[in-house]
This record gives sequence, C-alpha cells and structure tokens, in this order.
Amino acid sequence: MEKINHYISIVNQAIDELSYNKEPKKLYEPIKYTLTLGGKRIRPALLLLANDLFGGKAVRAMNSALAIEVFHNFTLVHDDIMDDAPLRRGKTTVFKKWDTNTAILSGDVMFVNAIQLLAKDNNDKLADILAIFNKASVEVCEGQQYDMDFETLENVSIDDYLKMIELKTAVLLAASLKIGALIANAKQDDANHIYEFGRNLGIAFQLMDDILDLYGDPEKFGKQVGGDVIANKKTYLLLKAKELAKGETRKELEFCLTSTAIKPENKVERIKTIFNALGVKKAAIDEMNLFYNTAISHLDSIDAPEDKKKVFEDFAKQLMHREN
Amino acid sequence: MEKINHYISIVNQAIDELSYNKEPKKLYEPIKYTLTLGGKRIRPALLLLANDLFGGKAVRAMNSALAIEVFHNFTLVHDDIMDDAPLRRGKTTVFKKWDTNTAILSGDVMFVNAIQLLAKDNNDKLADILAIFNKASVEVCEGQQYDMDFETLENVSIDDYLKMIELKTAVLLAASLKIGALIANAKQDDANHIYEFGRNLGIAFQLMDDILDLYGDPEKFGKQVGGDVIANKKTYLLLKAKELAKGETRKELEFCLTSTAIKPENKVERIKTIFNALGVKKAAIDEMNLFYNTAISHLDSIDAPEDKKKVFEDFAKQLMHREN
Repeated sequence: MEKINHYISIVNQAIDELSYNKEPKKLYEPIKYTLTLGGKRIRPALLLLANDLFGGKAVRAMNSALAIEVFHNFTLVHDDIMDDAPLRRGKTTVFKKWDTNTAILSGDVMFVNAIQLLAKDNNDKLADILAIFNKASVEVCEGQQYDMDFETLENVSIDDYLKMIELKTAVLLAASLKIGALIANAKQDDANHIYEFGRNLGIAFQLMDDILDLYGDPEKFGKQVGGDVIANKKTYLLLKAKELAKGETRKELEFCLTSTAIKPENKVERIKTIFNALGVKKAAIDEMNLFYNTAISHLDSIDAPEDKKKVFEDFAKQLMHREN
Repeated sequence: MEKINHYISIVNQAIDELSYNKEPKKLYEPIKYTLTLGGKRIRPALLLLANDLFGGKAVRAMNSALAIEVFHNFTLVHDDIMDDAPLRRGKTTVFKKWDTNTAILSGDVMFVNAIQLLAKDNNDKLADILAIFNKASVEVCEGQQYDMDFETLENVSIDDYLKMIELKTAVLLAASLKIGALIANAKQDDANHIYEFGRNLGIAFQLMDDILDLYGDPEKFGKQVGGDVIANKKTYLLLKAKELAKGETRKELEFCLTSTAIKPENKVERIKTIFNALGVKKAAIDEMNLFYNTAISHLDSIDAPEDKKKVFEDFAKQLMHREN
C-alpha cells in the first residue's frame, strides 16, 4: 500500500497546485472548494499505479490522473444537486453553500477542465484515451439516470441493479486503470484485462458498500448503520430479499417497507431479521466474491512483473476487507 | 446565402439522424427534444462554410459541425435552468417539461456527445481542434457567470459588458469558424483571421440584439419590444445611458429603474426618451460598426478566393441589417 499512498499524496499535491484563483470568482471558488474537500483519490492513484505496472513514469500520466479526479468531482457536484444532498465528506455541498446555478455552471467548467487536463498528457494517443474517457463519462451519466429511475420503479431486477452500479461506479475505475495502462504503452490485451479488473472490482466494491450499510461495525462504519434500510434504498440486499420472500415473510417485508408507523431502529431490526431468514447477506457476499474473483483472474492474465501485480491484489483485498 | 442555406439544411438532416432512441429514455428523450426544437444552426453552418472557404469538403467537417451545435444546445439546456426560462424557441424548456435533474444530466451527456462528435472527424488534428473547442467552452461558461453576476452588480462598465458578450456569444462563433478552417488545413494566420472575424462579428451581432430590443419594428421583431428595458436588463444601451446621464436626466433614469409604480409601456417610453436625449442609440450603432468593420478587415486579410469571401461578407451584412 506504500506505493498507492505515495501516489495519493502526489495527486493531492498536484490538486492543490491547480490554479483556480481566477475570475469570475463565483465560478472558480466552488471548484477550488470541491477539489480540496478531500476524498480518497482512489481513481487517480489507480491510474498512476496502472501506468507504473506497465513501466510508465508518473510524471507523464499526472495530468490524466488529475483529469479523472476533476471529472469524478464534477459528477459529485451535479449528483449532489440531483440527490438534494446537504453534505459531502462532512462539508456543505456546493449547491447548498452557494446555489444550484453555481453548482451547475462550476460543474460544467470542471468537466471542460477534465478534458483539458487529459489532452495535456496525450498528444500521440489522445484519440484512444479520449474515447475511453468519453465512453465512461456517458456511462456514468446513464448510471446516475438509472439510479434515479430506480427510486420510483416498482420492479428492479438484480441484473438491472448490477448494470446500474457498473455504470455509476465501476466503469470510471476501469477507465482510469486502462488510461494509465495505455499511457505506459501497455499492449491492448493487457489494457483490456486491467479494465476488466477494475470493472469487476468496482462492482464488488459497491456490493461491499451495500453489505456494510447494514452489517458494518457501528463503531467503525462512520455512518448510521442501516441508513439504506431506513430510506428503502434498493440495494442488492433489498432486491434479493424481494426476489426470495414468500408468504408471511413477504407480507412482513412489504409492511416494513410501506408502514409509516414503525420507528427507524425497529425497522432496521425487523428487516435485518427478514434478511437473515432469507440468507440475503450470504447471497450478497457470494455475488461479491464472484466479481472479486473475476477481477483477480483478469489481473492474473496480465503480462507484467508479479511484484507489481501483487500491489493491485493487496489493494483489492483491502477494499474487500474494509470496515467503512 | 444559398450556400449557407444548403449547409443549414444538411446540418438539420444530420441532426435528425443522430441516434437518441436509446435507454435510459429519461436521459435521451430530452436530448432528442432539444436538438429537434429548431434553431438557426448558424454555428455549424459557419463551420462548414469556413471549411469550404479553405477548400475543405463538408463531409469531413460534418461531425465537428454537429459537435458545435450539440454543445451550443447543451449550454441552452443548462442556461434555461439558471435563467428560470419557461420557453425556448416557443416550446417548453427541458427543465420545465421534465425537471431540473433531467435537464442537468441530459445536458451533461450532450456535452460528452459533443466531444465524441468532435473526435470523430479529427484524428490527426484532434489536439489542436480540441484545444480551441475547450477554450471556447470554458469562456462560454465564464460569460454565463458574468451575465448572472451583472444582474445584481450595481456598477457594470461598458468594457465589462463587452467582455461578457464576447465570452457568452462571440467566442463560440469564432471557434466554429476556426475549427472549420483548420479541418480544411488552413494556414494558422488565416485560421486566426477567421477566428477574429467571428469574434468581432459576434460582438456586433449581440449589440444589434440590444438595439433591436428597443428600436426594432414591432411588426417584424417577433418579441415584445422593450423587453430588456422592462426587465432593467443591463444592455449596452442602458449601461451607456448610465455612463452619460447627469442631473435631472440621471434622476429620471434612476426613477424609471427603481419605481414600481410606472406601467411597463410607460417605462419603455420614458426610458426611450432618455436614451434619445443622450444619443445612446447612435453610440451603440457606432460601437457595433466598429466591431463590424474590424470583422470585415480580418476577412479581407484572409488568403482565399474572393467569391468565397463574398459569401461571408454578405452573411455579415445580413446579420447587421436583420429585423429580428
């Protein structure tokens, strides 16, 4: 993890050096605010790590790494408006701190800035790298749209859900890795394998998120345990339960989902009881492991030094065993 | 004008052929709706015309022309949210017909689509063309921000105003022309001249807009004459009047701008009387002609067939003598 932490630290430094102290202030201040709010910087760090895997130098991929992070933050600024979210990383969101118009327009500029950063590194491979970036960008928007659609949709299948989290979360992780690989002149096969590693790991990561929401250790989770349950969020757990529940269990589930009389903490407990009876947690873990193992098999197929591949495997393992 | 009309018609046809009949529907239907609402298609037509000026074939610049039109429409979708505008080209705006979230996200996808279209035409010149496009994109956002800032700002100078309309309106026209020129392998000097032609013409065009709002023929204008005056919009006319008005005239102007007791039609008449006394219309026309003449002198400097340059001059003249 030392290498990843090193990359995270140089990404943070490079972000601080992006020049957003310019006019018009109302356009650029929210961008500076957003980018320095923190964040794990996982995507740019993975881009640099993939670049290193194929012998690339970080300095030649740095602007692309920043492009991914600026793009990711652009999606957060716009998503927070759509989700009416007051907080992001414990701080007031842009549209709450300023207003919706500011968040729309500052977000738009961040998107252009992302493309500008991407173009800086990649004169000879720009067309290929831009195509990967654009495809992921469209998919992230599609994922966000499906996520919003699902809120009001009665029947969402597990397949629909997996597709949604793939689009909304996994493809950008995958694209980051592939772009890093291509900048280092990786072979097309290897670039595709690292993409698939990222795509599958991203889906596994999101399933872990769903599991942690209800089964995480309250001391370590950092958020309210059962938040998704209280909000009737259509997570893998709930969708699987709806698929499996019959008879009395189904009635009890429907009651918990629709009754306004149950207190939140009771709702979490009753739904957890149903989930346990249906073996929903195990189903989620099995599904997650399926994606995790697929990710690892793509990593295994890559033609690169074993010690460097080990860094990716350790990172993947750590994601699967995290507690928040 | 025959050539321009030809290009407008093939642009319209190509827009109809863009495939937006896909899932998720809520993301793509608003895009199809926006792009088929109509619009003058001036920017893509000028891109094709500039391409033709330097001997390029329309078929090789078509995707770039579409890119500009999709980008322009993306800015309209987001601007309509920011301006709380119910109508665009006589039809309900996207955020009113669907909702704000839809308009944000569909707009975002349109932006990605614009970049994708741009990348289709331009493998060998992609970096240069993308740089021009990105610069214009950032500037359009900056222009929109200044425009919003000016609404609540007490003192806006004529220079600030000219800068704002340059950013919000003129640079995209200029960039369209330059991109068309570069696709046709124009020399850098000529590409810069056509850019400056577009930038200056764009500013002149916007000044004409300001003049027409108050001095247009009500029969031909198509909108309510004096709409800007009623809304206290900081146009060139009003800013010039504020700069020139002294003594009683200044008091009368301030009264008209702040009193809620005056009826709209009286307000238009009283402000028009002030403007006439101050010679504000003539000042605006002089300023407009300055930009127009600069535009034409850049056109004159271009090394290209005179008959083809004449098409641009005729087009520019027509813009300056329009009545709506």
